[in-house]
Amino acid sequence: MPAVKPFKEMTKEELTKLVEQYKVEYKKVQDRGLELNMSRGKPCTEQLDLSMGMMDVLSSNSDLRCEDGTDCRNYGVLAGIPEAMELIGDMMEVPYDHIIIYGNSSLNIMYDTVSRSYSHGVMGSTPWCKLDKVKWICVVPGYDRHFAITQYFGIENICVPMTPTGPDMDMVEELVSHDESIKGIWCVPKYSNPTGNSYSDETVRRFARLKPAAKDFRIYWDNAYGMHHLYDHDQDHLLEILAECKRAGNPDLVYKFASTSKISFPGSGIAALATSLNNLEDIKQQLKIQTIGHDKVNQLRHVRFFGDIHGMVEHMRKHADILRPKFEAVEDILDRNLTGLGIASWTKPKGGYFISYDVMDGCAKKIVSRAAKAGVVLTPAGATYPGGKDPHDSNIRIAPSFPPLSDLKTAMEVVALCTKLVCAEKCLEELDKPAETVKTAKK
Amino acid sequence: MPAVKPFKEMTKEELTKLVEQYKVEYKKVQDRGLELNMSRGKPCTEQLDLSMGMMDVLSSNSDLRCEDGTDCRNYGVLAGIPEAMELIGDMMEVPYDHIIIYGNSSLNIMYDTVSRSYSHGVMGSTPWCKLDKVKWICVVPGYDRHFAITQYFGIENICVPMTPTGPDMDMVEELVSHDESIKGIWCVPKYSNPTGNSYSDETVRRFARLKPAAKDFRIYWDNAYGMHHLYDHDQDHLLEILAECKRAGNPDLVYKFASTSKISFPGSGIAALATSLNNLEDIKQQLKIQTIGHDKVNQLRHVRFFGDIHGMVEHMRKHADILRPKFEAVEDILDRNLTGLGIASWTKPKGGYFISYDVMDGCAKKIVSRAAKAGVVLTPAGATYPGGKDPHDSNIRIAPSFPPLSDLKTAMEVVALCTKLVCAEKCLEELDKPAETVKTAKK
Repeated sequence: MPAVKPFKEMTKEELTKLVEQYKVEYKKVQDRGLELNMSRGKPCTEQLDLSMGMMDVLSSNSDLRCEDGTDCRNYGVLAGIPEAMELIGDMMEVPYDHIIIYGNSSLNIMYDTVSRSYSHGVMGSTPWCKLDKVKWICVVPGYDRHFAITQYFGIENICVPMTPTGPDMDMVEELVSHDESIKGIWCVPKYSNPTGNSYSDETVRRFARLKPAAKDFRIYWDNAYGMHHLYDHDQDHLLEILAECKRAGNPDLVYKFASTSKISFPGSGIAALATSLNNLEDIKQQLKIQTIGHDKVNQLRHVRFFGDIHGMVEHMRKHADILRPKFEAVEDILDRNLTGLGIASWTKPKGGYFISYDVMDGCAKKIVSRAAKAGVVLTPAGATYPGGKDPHDSNIRIAPSFPPLSDLKTAMEVVALCTKLVCAEKCLEELDKPAETVKTAKK
Repeated sequence: MPAVKPFKEMTKEELTKLVEQYKVEYKKVQDRGLELNMSRGKPCTEQLDLSMGMMDVLSSNSDLRCEDGTDCRNYGVLAGIPEAMELIGDMMEVPYDHIIIYGNSSLNIMYDTVSRSYSHGVMGSTPWCKLDKVKWICVVPGYDRHFAITQYFGIENICVPMTPTGPDMDMVEELVSHDESIKGIWCVPKYSNPTGNSYSDETVRRFARLKPAAKDFRIYWDNAYGMHHLYDHDQDHLLEILAECKRAGNPDLVYKFASTSKISFPGSGIAALATSLNNLEDIKQQLKIQTIGHDKVNQLRHVRFFGDIHGMVEHMRKHADILRPKFEAVEDILDRNLTGLGIASWTKPKGGYFISYDVMDGCAKKIVSRAAKAGVVLTPAGATYPGGKDPHDSNIRIAPSFPPLSDLKTAMEVVALCTKLVCAEKCLEELDKPAETVKTAKK
């Protein structure tokens, strides 16, 4: 291993030597013909196997009536069967009657929620399609599919930076209280995508106390990783936002989303929305036009498999046992390879599906491209910013869940190598530039 | 049984006597305290039991990869797994690559299709939300949930009457070719809801040859009952509309919808849209924003259960064996009670879920209300017209599927009795009116 010294403090000769050395190593990696994909936050096969019992809990001998006697096989039931509402209510930490259970995708619920607001407004407000301008706050780095929804509806995405305690709340408060055209904000409050950290109690309280200029402003609270801890005791705790909003006299401020996609099966889970009774009433006016009801048999299957929230918590411990070594392996490899070089930093989440990896400004795209050419597919650089445009070209989302551990380790060694190579080249390049044009590397 | 003679030809005395007699009978029925519901086209328990094998075809030992190797449990696959696309393609009589498989509800697909056109337009046209006026053709009597979707989007529903060969095509052609604000038409082309008849070949060809003034006009072809024959040989045949449109040089004119809701389970089936490749491309631009993919495990479950289209056809014969006696019982009871009285007529469908029942003008609401007070819940009178407003107050939708046969027979005797009572009262009332205000009864 080369001596640990920040690249920025190295001489041209030292860097040149390092670049040569990394290039040799990189060539060797390329010769291995790897094919490793860590581009998306997909559960791995072992995780999916944990839920195979779901295929057995209902059989042709089962009674498919739910506890209120409804035959789950037939039409009807708009908000969900009672026992599923209780389970999902417990999962979302809200009373069972404050939720609607939908189909298999919480993303679809979010899309529908924006779409309905666009075509019909929010609780009687002017439909957004009739307004000249609609804006939205995107916490960055964040989730690309969130940003894509608002972009698709022609909404202007405004970036607010993520901090270790959540979004920059000074900025959020300032924007929301003065601009009536701002109608919402995308949040992943717990084990956030991609940073992995969670909003502090203060952040949640400041959200609950927002005084938006727009009456139809809503917080889109995508609690995708509420149950997705890596450790049994060392867990982040997130204040329950609906209760906080009620206490703050802002009961209708939040739509909360969640699903069992990364608990049971990503393609075949159940997704839900939780919000105030007023908001639910408003939403059901549309929902009853849209569908006769969602898949109740699958709701019943989930209840019969998990039993109750305790069963689900126990189940999540099994997921954690599979994911924990993967997260630790990524952190370990980055630690060993990059500590002290001053070219990268990364988060160490206690849950969720991602590690956020920040490299020297202007290097992210090149690193992702180098990795791809060595057979390691990462999430495209920039994906964590609206429109795929990271102004610093410095953030990469690491998704450790899908590859087997040994592949993951190989892939991360490649990522670390590509990082060193690209950053060394960048530092070298900057040494060659006239002094005044040298930009300081981020962090 | 009273002598069979049209009520209209009866004297005041004869009618008065009949009304008295019917009232006595009606009182007796009320005393029985019936509770019978035939308000919606729901499959009965026996029909649902036919598909219980679906609960066994996947188990914890099953390989849940589909034929192209995709793990159906995980994220991904926007249009459907290959084997399900083949099965549903066969069911919809279109090539497998012309479909998208969605979730459990074709109504939801139709809603989404209107919603997308409203917010984003159709293949680049002006979004309907930016237009002053959007109109739609509703074939009446028709399906209330169709009409509710367009009404919800503020679209003006224009009625065109159903005839024994399909919608009045002279009116459809005239409207569509001259009014650019008309953007669509709701059709249930086979075993139509509620009339039960099917569009003739000429009707389908005239649809395929429409020359709409609006480029973004689409035919919403809800082939909900494509497989739902009552008889093994005596079946309606519907020309395949997408192929006809292609031949007519109008390939993009139609969105075709279907589902397995009344084949497997109404709450847990799979629904699909079939259309031209151009339309599919346009739709996928939105779909990929809306979801990561629909429930592939359920798609796999359907394929493993039905095997192929032959398996599905055989399965539908079992449904027919349950439904046929019910349809025949309804027709038999109406025949026995009402033939020759000149107060009602009804359709005799060869498939589908409904019988359309036409009574004397101004009597439908009263009959439904009378039946309800005797414990028989029917579909609300008027439900088959936009806004629930039947201008003649004469159409009632009979849904024979849900009640057990013995209950159904009881219920239909009640319906027949209420019809006689209400119509006799009506005729009596009209005899008392000055001659010039007497309206002639429909049919």
